[in-house]
Amino acid sequence: MLVLKYQQLEQRLGYKFESQRQLQLALTHRSYGATNNERLEFLGDSILNFIVGEALFRRFDAAREGQLSRLRSQMVKGETLAELAREFELSDCLILGEGELKSGGRQRDSILADCVEALIGAIYLESGLDVCRVLVLRWYAHRLDELSLDTSAKDSKSRLQEFLQAQRQPLPEYSVTDVSGEGHAQFFTIECRVTLSRTPTVAQASSRREAEKQAAAAMLELLNI
Amino acid sequence: MLVLKYQQLEQRLGYKFESQRQLQLALTHRSYGATNNERLEFLGDSILNFIVGEALFRRFDAAREGQLSRLRSQMVKGETLAELAREFELSDCLILGEGELKSGGRQRDSILADCVEALIGAIYLESGLDVCRVLVLRWYAHRLDELSLDTSAKDSKSRLQEFLQAQRQPLPEYSVTDVSGEGHAQFFTIECRVTLSRTPTVAQASSRREAEKQAAAAMLELLNI
Repeated sequence: MLVLKYQQLEQRLGYKFESQRQLQLALTHRSYGATNNERLEFLGDSILNFIVGEALFRRFDAAREGQLSRLRSQMVKGETLAELAREFELSDCLILGEGELKSGGRQRDSILADCVEALIGAIYLESGLDVCRVLVLRWYAHRLDELSLDTSAKDSKSRLQEFLQAQRQPLPEYSVTDVSGEGHAQFFTIECRVTLSRTPTVAQASSRREAEKQAAAAMLELLNI
Repeated sequence: MLVLKYQQLEQRLGYKFESQRQLQLALTHRSYGATNNERLEFLGDSILNFIVGEALFRRFDAAREGQLSRLRSQMVKGETLAELAREFELSDCLILGEGELKSGGRQRDSILADCVEALIGAIYLESGLDVCRVLVLRWYAHRLDELSLDTSAKDSKSRLQEFLQAQRQPLPEYSVTDVSGEGHAQFFTIECRVTLSRTPTVAQASSRREAEKQAAAAMLELLNI
C-alpha cells in the first residue's frame, strides 16, 4: 500500500529513487523525529535557487538584476512550492509527527514547500545536477512559459507606493500628458512623479492603467529598487 | 598596463578568462553605465550559495539545518566577500563611474562583494560548474577549514538573548549546578532556563563562560531557532 503510494509519487515527479530510504527521508518532517528532511531541504533550497536563477538569466537576456530577482522570488516562494507539492499530491506521502498530523500539517504550505526542496536535495545527491535541472525545469515549465518581464511589472504601482510609504515620502503622482488616437485605438502618455527623483518617468500604452504601471516600473528602475 | 593588471588578477583568481570582454563585464559596476555586472552578480550569487551550501552539507554531516544556514551566511555575507576581493586586489581592477570613483567606490565593501559574485557568474558561464566549484572552494579553503560547528555556537548567548527579547520574554537564567576538579582542571556544569521551555538545558565545560555558551546553543536547538 505504502509502496504503491511512493511509486505513484515517483511517477508524478518523473523520477525513480534508487534509494527508497532517501525518498522517505525527504518526506519526513522534523515533527517526526531527529532524522528528518531539514538538511536535504537546506541543500535543495540552494539548488532550486540556482537552477531557477540560471533559467531566468538565460531566458530573459535583457532583464536587469532587479527584475530577475523578483521573478525568481515568485518562482521559489513557499506558495509556489506548495502549489507544486499539491500537483505532486505530496500531502498523502508526508511523514509527520502526531502533533502535526492532528493539527492539519499535511495541508500546511510551509511543510509542503520544504518537502519539495528536500526532494530536490535528495535527487541531486543521487543523480547530480543535470538530472536535477531537467526535472526542476520540467516541473516549472508552464510557470516559466507564463512569465514575462511584465509579470514583474504587474504590481509595480503598488510596489512603488509601498516603497515610498516605507521611506515616509508622499505618494507618486500620475498624470496624463497626452492622448492620441480615438476610441479603441487611443494611446495614453503617462508621467509618474515622485519626490525622490527630479525627473519624472514617462510611459505610453493603449490604456491609462497599463501606461501607469509601466511608468511606475520605470520609476522603480530609476530609483534602483 | 591594463592588460598586465588583468593578467595579475587572473593569476590571483587562479583562472584565465577565455573572453577578456567577459572579465571586464564582471568588473564593471552599474555606476559605469547600462552594461554592467549586475546580471552576472545575480547568477554568481546563486552559484556561490549552492557551492558553499553543498560544501557545508558534506563537511558537517551531523549539523542541523539551522547551523548550516548560519555557517553559510557567514561565508557568503558581504563582509566575507569583500575580504576575498581584497585578497584578489580587486580594487585596482574595478571599472566604476565618475561619481563612485570620486566617493571612494573602489574601497566600498558592497561593490567589492558584488564584483566577486559577478566573477563567479562569469567563470560559470565560460567554464561550467565543476571548474567554478574547484575555484570557489580553493578561495574559501582556509575559511572552511577554520569553521567548526562551534563557530556558529560562538555567539549563542547573545542570539538566545535577542530572540527572547524579540518575543518579549524574560532573559535566560544561567546557574552553576556543579563544579568538579580543582584549579585549572575545573569542570563546570551550567543550567540554562528560559520561560519558553519547561526543561532547562545543561552543558559542561572547563570554563563557566564556555559552558554557558554551550547551554545557550542547546537551548536554541531545543527551541528550534
